[in-house]
Amino acid sequence: MDRQEMIDRVRAEMPEKRWLHTEGVMATAIVLAERYGEDPQRAELAAILHDVAKFWPVDRQAAVIRDNALSSDVLDYDKELWHALAGAWVAQREYGVTDPEVLDAINYHTSGRRGMTKLEKVVWLADYIEPGRNFPGVDDIRALAEQSLDRAVLAGLDGTIGVLIARGKRIYPLTVEARNGLIEELSGKS
Amino acid sequence: MDRQEMIDRVRAEMPEKRWLHTEGVMATAIVLAERYGEDPQRAELAAILHDVAKFWPVDRQAAVIRDNALSSDVLDYDKELWHALAGAWVAQREYGVTDPEVLDAINYHTSGRRGMTKLEKVVWLADYIEPGRNFPGVDDIRALAEQSLDRAVLAGLDGTIGVLIARGKRIYPLTVEARNGLIEELSGKS
Repeated sequence: MDRQEMIDRVRAEMPEKRWLHTEGVMATAIVLAERYGEDPQRAELAAILHDVAKFWPVDRQAAVIRDNALSSDVLDYDKELWHALAGAWVAQREYGVTDPEVLDAINYHTSGRRGMTKLEKVVWLADYIEPGRNFPGVDDIRALAEQSLDRAVLAGLDGTIGVLIARGKRIYPLTVEARNGLIEELSGKS
Repeated sequence: MDRQEMIDRVRAEMPEKRWLHTEGVMATAIVLAERYGEDPQRAELAAILHDVAKFWPVDRQAAVIRDNALSSDVLDYDKELWHALAGAWVAQREYGVTDPEVLDAINYHTSGRRGMTKLEKVVWLADYIEPGRNFPGVDDIRALAEQSLDRAVLAGLDGTIGVLIARGKRIYPLTVEARNGLIEELSGKS
C-alpha cells in the first residue's frame, strides 16, 4: 500500500480532530528521528498508524487483543492502553506493515516498556509533544526534546505517572518499567 | 524472649533518634490496630522489630538477602528497601518471631505489595505517619487515617511514588502493585 492510500484509509478511521493530532505526530516523529539518528520514514509510518484503532468501539479493541492472544493483562488496566495493541495488529494485518520495530513502536506508544528502541522512544515522545498537545509543562518537555531523547521521554513518563496518581487511577506496570529502564540507561551513560 | 528484653536488644541496634521513631511507630500501630480491628499486640511486635536491620551496614543487609534467597530483585533497587527484608529474617532467626503475618508486616513495611493484609497496612501506615514524621502533607494523611485505613495507605503510596519521581529515582514494582491493588480493593467496596 502506498503512503497516500494508507493516509486516506487511516484518516477515515477517526474524527478530523484526531487526524490533525496524527499529522502532528507524523511531523514531530520525522523531526525527532532526524535529530536522533533514526530513519524518518519508519518513524512517519509508525506515526501514521499509531492511533488507527483509537476510535474503534472498546469492545472491538478488546476482542482483537483477546482473540489474537496479545498481552491480555492490559485488558485489566485502563482502556486508554488498548488501542495501541489493537493498532499494531491492524497495522500488520490490514496495512501490510512487516517491520517489527515499526509494529513495536505502535504497540508501545502509550504504555512504553523497559528497553524501548530508539524508534519506540521517537514515536512515544512525538505523541506526547506534537504541536496540538497543550497541558501544563509540555513546553518544558519540548525544550528537553531538543537536548536529549531519553530525558524528554523520562520527563513524559513522569508526567504520565503523575497524572494517573492525581486521578486515582492504576499505573500499568510496563510504564513504571519503562521509566526505571530509562533511569538505568541514563545513569549508565552519565 | 519477653517484650522488654526484645525492646532492649532492638534499641541497642540503632541510634537513639531512630529508637524514638520506633516508639512512635509502636504507639501509632497500636492505635491503628485498635481502630481497624487488628490485634494490637501483633501490631506492636512488628513495629518493635520493623527497623531492626536499618542501621546495619548495607553490605550486611545485602548478604542476608542474598545468602537466604530472599527476594533478590530488591538488590537491584534502592538500598532503602533492603532493611525490611533483612529485618524480617532477623526477627525470625534472632528474635524467635514465628507469626508469618508479623514477619510479612516487617518484610513489606517499606515496599508494600499487592494484597497487603490488614496488619501489613497498619504497620506500613504507622511507619509513615508516626508523630515524629514531618513532611508536607503528613497531617492530611493522619486525618485520612482516622477515616479509612485503605485510603490513608493509598495516599501514602501516592506520596512515596511522587517523592521517587521528584528525585529521579526508580520505583520498585511492588510499590506500584500495592497501589494498584488498593485502588482495586477500594473500587470493589464502593
